[in-house]
Amino acid sequence: MQARLDEVKAQVQSALDAAIADLPQGELRDAMAYATVGGKRLRAFLVMESARLHGVQAEAALPVAAAVEALHAYSLVHDDLPAMDDDDLRRGMPTCHVQWSEATAILAGDALQTLAFDLLARDQVGDAAARLRLIRAFSDAVGARGMVWGQALDIAAETAVDALDLKAVKRLQGAKTGALIRFAAMSGALIADADSAALDDYATALGLAFQIADDILDVTGDEDVTGKRVGKDADAGKATFVSLLGLEGAQDEARRYVTRAEDALSPYGDAAGNLRDLARFVIERDT
Amino acid sequence: MQARLDEVKAQVQSALDAAIADLPQGELRDAMAYATVGGKRLRAFLVMESARLHGVQAEAALPVAAAVEALHAYSLVHDDLPAMDDDDLRRGMPTCHVQWSEATAILAGDALQTLAFDLLARDQVGDAAARLRLIRAFSDAVGARGMVWGQALDIAAETAVDALDLKAVKRLQGAKTGALIRFAAMSGALIADADSAALDDYATALGLAFQIADDILDVTGDEDVTGKRVGKDADAGKATFVSLLGLEGAQDEARRYVTRAEDALSPYGDAAGNLRDLARFVIERDT
Repeated sequence: MQARLDEVKAQVQSALDAAIADLPQGELRDAMAYATVGGKRLRAFLVMESARLHGVQAEAALPVAAAVEALHAYSLVHDDLPAMDDDDLRRGMPTCHVQWSEATAILAGDALQTLAFDLLARDQVGDAAARLRLIRAFSDAVGARGMVWGQALDIAAETAVDALDLKAVKRLQGAKTGALIRFAAMSGALIADADSAALDDYATALGLAFQIADDILDVTGDEDVTGKRVGKDADAGKATFVSLLGLEGAQDEARRYVTRAEDALSPYGDAAGNLRDLARFVIERDT
Repeated sequence: MQARLDEVKAQVQSALDAAIADLPQGELRDAMAYATVGGKRLRAFLVMESARLHGVQAEAALPVAAAVEALHAYSLVHDDLPAMDDDDLRRGMPTCHVQWSEATAILAGDALQTLAFDLLARDQVGDAAARLRLIRAFSDAVGARGMVWGQALDIAAETAVDALDLKAVKRLQGAKTGALIRFAAMSGALIADADSAALDDYATALGLAFQIADDILDVTGDEDVTGKRVGKDADAGKATFVSLLGLEGAQDEARRYVTRAEDALSPYGDAAGNLRDLARFVIERDT
């Protein structure tokens, strides 16, 4: 899987670089480029593997992978703002508002969201109907019934009197991080107009495993390796999978979700090997 | 024109209310609803008149009008943030971050941008090709080569040593406010796949007349009538059409652009009466 992930990383970085280089020069463009460098590119990997499983050419899927990563980058830039999570370190670098300014970070995030929709609408992605299927599913995944809703729930939880219970944390994470992961995993099926139910089940389980692993890394991680502050959630008294289940309980729960993700891929047989590897990877990673 | 403007106001408010009521309840949704109430709805009016001129049904154009107003609302919410223009009054009401919180205002703006794309992609707008023409033109108009770029130029100008000259102010405003106005005016032609050059010329002149009138109102306006702080630009030493041309010079320039806007509509004959009225209205308004 690692070779394939490296290949996707290089492809999606080129696609993002080309799309951003095409914009008027200035600090806004520089900040957008800064915000879209690096990262694990797991979402792009999901797009490219989902496409491959459904006979969609890499050339068609690449703008979709770039769109998903542009959207993810915007969400990180805005989440890191002082008025939100107030983070100063991301991917081992100063966060966008520290490197530039709050105003530029807000605008760069805004323009990255626009760029994501622009990429999904490009001719090379597929026929008009396919692109509209993607755009509709994408806006559901990333807006006020998806990612932004999850982020709003997260902000509200910080000031709530009672900590969230396990069900509420799963609902929150299913929206905040899960919805975009599900879109990415289903995107190949959406382009091909194929049944996306198996990939939906896979990605739902994968997203939860991923988030549990994130919560574990927030406790056990090494800042030099993760490239972001650790212990933040615990310090803030936030309800996480670790605070609710304990460290071992969270590790067990993550493994259960990985098994569920692997099982969901059975309709694809051996062709889904990379996606199975990814499910195991998300709980074994140290970053 | 006023009766038609009132009709469009009611239609677009219903469309926005319905789209937002459809979202999960909570502070995020409430803030989105709050940010989309009121306003002059000139952009929605442009969409509906552009559609009428090209034989596009009101039912098809309405989601586009709502999209343009949702996008405009998001831009105001983010522009008003403390890290941007730091405004506390908008449409006579506390700005979104004052009413709710900075975090909620950032997220409400983010989700309103998503909602705009969601609305453009809806079935009732037209066939798939028409919707994609709109989405491509819209992302050009509102992203890092359009509105957000203009906003970034505006922010940069605030800290620059030299004030902008007239050409630079026109370029800035052409992006910051002009691009969305041009999209709105051209949208009917885009849906109908008709030539949009005349509407482009009209809207380019209209947008400049509108901005000059805004700069004049910032000097001569009554806060109780405009519903926003007046004298802000002058206090900040910002280059505006008034600071560059003087009050009378700016008024003359605005009238010239209104004439140019009216002239651009000649291919449409009498059918464009409402758009001609609008051009005169933008420099006669007191709000």
